Amino acid sequence: MDGSFLIGSKSETANDTFRAMNPATDKALDTDFAISTTDHVAEACKLADAAFDSFRELDPEERAKFLEAVAEEIEATEGLVERAMAESGLPEARLTGERGRTCGQLRLFAKLLRQGRWENVVVDNAMPDRQPLPRADLRQRRIAVGPVAVFGASNFPLAFSVAGGDTASAFAAGCPVVCKGHPAHPGTSVLVGKAIQKAVQKCGLHEGVFSLIQGPANELGQALVEDPRIKAVGFTGSRGGGLALMKLAQSRPEPIPVYAEMSAVNPVLLFPEALKARGEALGKAYVGSLTMGSGQFCTNPGVVLAVDGPDLDAFAQTAADALAEAQPQVMLTSAIHANYDKGVEMLSSQSDVDTLARGAEGSGCNRGRAALFAASGKTFLANPKLAEEVFGAASIIVKCADMAELRQVLDQMEGQLTITFQMDDGDAEAAKAVLPIAERKAGRILANGWPTGVEVSYAMVHGGPFPATSDPRSTSVGTAAIERYLRPVCYQDLPESILPKAVKRGNPLGLPRIVDGEVEA
Amino acid sequence: MDGSFLIGSKSETANDTFRAMNPATDKALDTDFAISTTDHVAEACKLADAAFDSFRELDPEERAKFLEAVAEEIEATEGLVERAMAESGLPEARLTGERGRTCGQLRLFAKLLRQGRWENVVVDNAMPDRQPLPRADLRQRRIAVGPVAVFGASNFPLAFSVAGGDTASAFAAGCPVVCKGHPAHPGTSVLVGKAIQKAVQKCGLHEGVFSLIQGPANELGQALVEDPRIKAVGFTGSRGGGLALMKLAQSRPEPIPVYAEMSAVNPVLLFPEALKARGEALGKAYVGSLTMGSGQFCTNPGVVLAVDGPDLDAFAQTAADALAEAQPQVMLTSAIHANYDKGVEMLSSQSDVDTLARGAEGSGCNRGRAALFAASGKTFLANPKLAEEVFGAASIIVKCADMAELRQVLDQMEGQLTITFQMDDGDAEAAKAVLPIAERKAGRILANGWPTGVEVSYAMVHGGPFPATSDPRSTSVGTAAIERYLRPVCYQDLPESILPKAVKRGNPLGLPRIVDGEVEA
Repeated sequence: MDGSFLIGSKSETANDTFRAMNPATDKALDTDFAISTTDHVAEACKLADAAFDSFRELDPEERAKFLEAVAEEIEATEGLVERAMAESGLPEARLTGERGRTCGQLRLFAKLLRQGRWENVVVDNAMPDRQPLPRADLRQRRIAVGPVAVFGASNFPLAFSVAGGDTASAFAAGCPVVCKGHPAHPGTSVLVGKAIQKAVQKCGLHEGVFSLIQGPANELGQALVEDPRIKAVGFTGSRGGGLALMKLAQSRPEPIPVYAEMSAVNPVLLFPEALKARGEALGKAYVGSLTMGSGQFCTNPGVVLAVDGPDLDAFAQTAADALAEAQPQVMLTSAIHANYDKGVEMLSSQSDVDTLARGAEGSGCNRGRAALFAASGKTFLANPKLAEEVFGAASIIVKCADMAELRQVLDQMEGQLTITFQMDDGDAEAAKAVLPIAERKAGRILANGWPTGVEVSYAMVHGGPFPATSDPRSTSVGTAAIERYLRPVCYQDLPESILPKAVKRGNPLGLPRIVDGEVEA
Repeated sequence: MDGSFLIGSKSETANDTFRAMNPATDKALDTDFAISTTDHVAEACKLADAAFDSFRELDPEERAKFLEAVAEEIEATEGLVERAMAESGLPEARLTGERGRTCGQLRLFAKLLRQGRWENVVVDNAMPDRQPLPRADLRQRRIAVGPVAVFGASNFPLAFSVAGGDTASAFAAGCPVVCKGHPAHPGTSVLVGKAIQKAVQKCGLHEGVFSLIQGPANELGQALVEDPRIKAVGFTGSRGGGLALMKLAQSRPEPIPVYAEMSAVNPVLLFPEALKARGEALGKAYVGSLTMGSGQFCTNPGVVLAVDGPDLDAFAQTAADALAEAQPQVMLTSAIHANYDKGVEMLSSQSDVDTLARGAEGSGCNRGRAALFAASGKTFLANPKLAEEVFGAASIIVKCADMAELRQVLDQMEGQLTITFQMDDGDAEAAKAVLPIAERKAGRILANGWPTGVEVSYAMVHGGPFPATSDPRSTSVGTAAIERYLRPVCYQDLPESILPKAVKRGNPLGLPRIVDGEVEA
């Protein structure tokens, strides 16, 4: 295991080091990881800035090949899944799947680059004879915003870390990336970072396209966001962390956008007919979604809303029985585990909140015991603490007096990543009445499934109104994530000799275009 | 003249009133305009929120008809141009043209709505048999963000005020608008506001779709931006004003985006061959662009960059001669005129800055005398004050030692709305070397024209990196302005019975779609 961090093509060492902890044992893993300094941050940003103009002007085909090369290098990296298991406590199957998702994501962005729509070329041809004034030749395309700071996430050591969705979409847009690896998994980070470094070299790109900063202190991330060469930030993590980055980014002499995916409780609405017809099946499936991966998903179902009555009682009983049998799983870090326990304690100590069940007790470190609570709609409305995210397998069933109160509860909630409808045919009218509220509140609305499991595709939205994310106009999963790192530029009457290829009159890149307001045939 | 302000369908009066000043005479115009209170702001926002769900779900055709109705009502408003002349000091031809632009803008957004691309429907069909996991049916569209606060601009009493670009694009997106009229032209504002009110009524829309708040105090705008029902802000004005709104919006419990178009000096680069071949013509055209409308355009050319030498001297001499003959024109308000004089004084008092010429002295109030300065590249690099916008017909010629220094000067400048190249064939190599810097700095790059005069079209970008705007991913002119007020929502496995029309499986609205990653035939 190599303990260096990566500045352009260099692997750097240092006297100051830190180690990763194995959350399953609370023991430090081998390998001392060199800690970057703020000087290294500045050097990485300087290199990224130097790489920017050539990287963003690569033909899309060349950037697509680079993304594919990153995927290949990750697949060729030995010991990656094993190291990620040791550093995260996540099981092999999950991490093997996550590696597949990470590489699939890179390849999907390669495909997107070849399709060309992302560049959004729009041409208004000159109208020299127009009265009273002629119209100039106007050509718009989107270009990369500049070097991007990416923060590795704790809960996706591969798919939302060094070569995860934020990096893949920034690279696709043409933005060099300076990544701050998550301090819980430095070994995983450097393995993936070296894979990117190799791909940069194999593709003959400027070394500044990628750097990896490592270290446990917040000041590195702060220096990164404050560096004037950084033009956008990608982050998945806690609300506190996201808000701190937003504040830093807004306080810069030149404010920049932060794309922070922060927190959500992902309400699940059980409509009456569905609850009546399949309450027991729903109860079991709910606990399956809730306890999967120890509940450490951004889309974990933390709140269930339904109208009180015997059908809801039966659902709750089934869920409680299933949850009581849920075996505790290792959580990602001891800090996350401690926060989870604190959150469960907070929920259970609120007045008029019932603890319906706790998961099985287990042995070993940092095991998260699932927790299921219930409260009335009135109690939930009166106590904002009950709507706070407890990261892990904790959830609360809110027993509403009627559909009107259910709508009121939903309407009072903050922005969410997802809202789920469990509904049968007879519920359509009731669901229709809730839909406008759901659309205002969430980036994704799903029916008769569970919010965990986020498809990486064209139509996906993994985003939503604040505080689910810092910017509801964006998604951090799916091809639309590229839009976070692009801005439009218009070229007016530029001679062919200096027009960028993408907007040249002959369209040498064969890009799809809107010409004079219509899709070009 | 009616002195009321407009809350939904009501015309409100008040005991507290204010009057507009005629800048050409410094005399108050007739009509007492009722001053709104913060209670009125809250009432307008409440109505806007109540109107939101129905307005955003109108068929695009219905919203298009509403935009066209607004245009028709504006055209049918008697005395509009006359009142705008009295309140702004702008001449009749300009305001007649601006009215045409305002109505053309509304009609272009109507056309855009009918084309349907704005809704960005993306469908990933279900793949029930996919291994290892099936794929759900995923449908993305963009929906309106919510009620929008629009601030009227001083320098475009029609095209960037009550029914201007911000309002037109917000309406097009499906956002109700609460507009704060600019206090310099309350009569113009209420005339246009009544036209919108009539269109709302004729189209049978919810009255909350539009309200107009009036008054001279900043606290009204502050209350508007802080209202929790407002979800985005459109603003064109000063850097100070824009920064204040950004800060307010970020300090809300739920931060919201501010689209502020703030300040720019719009550098014009004279390349050597062009300067040699047509320096005199350029000098005259430059002064024409600079002094048009007393220089009160966001895209006014405030800085000229060129390599020092006899060709630049000839250009400067021609420009100085032309400027000395420029007749002073009435500026928009006495405050703007006073600020202009202060800015000119500031520039002329800087060390190593030459005053090349001042425009003719004129009689009458608030006449802005044009001003032309020159400084070396070294002086300009050392003194950031020389790069500050002086709103009005003031400009500085920066004499660079060579092309390398010219690039350095440009690279050091802040974000701009436009950068202009004056170039001939022989300048192509030099222009190519500057283009990447220009792309990083500006939203629009133009050749052999002048930055004033912004086409309202599909390809236009009237935006740019901070501080030209608060958000370089956006434009405030052209059809892409609609994107500021939209956010994506994904629908997963929703039954046809509750899917919104735009994403129903049969595509009843006939919208253009991306299906499984490809443009649908």
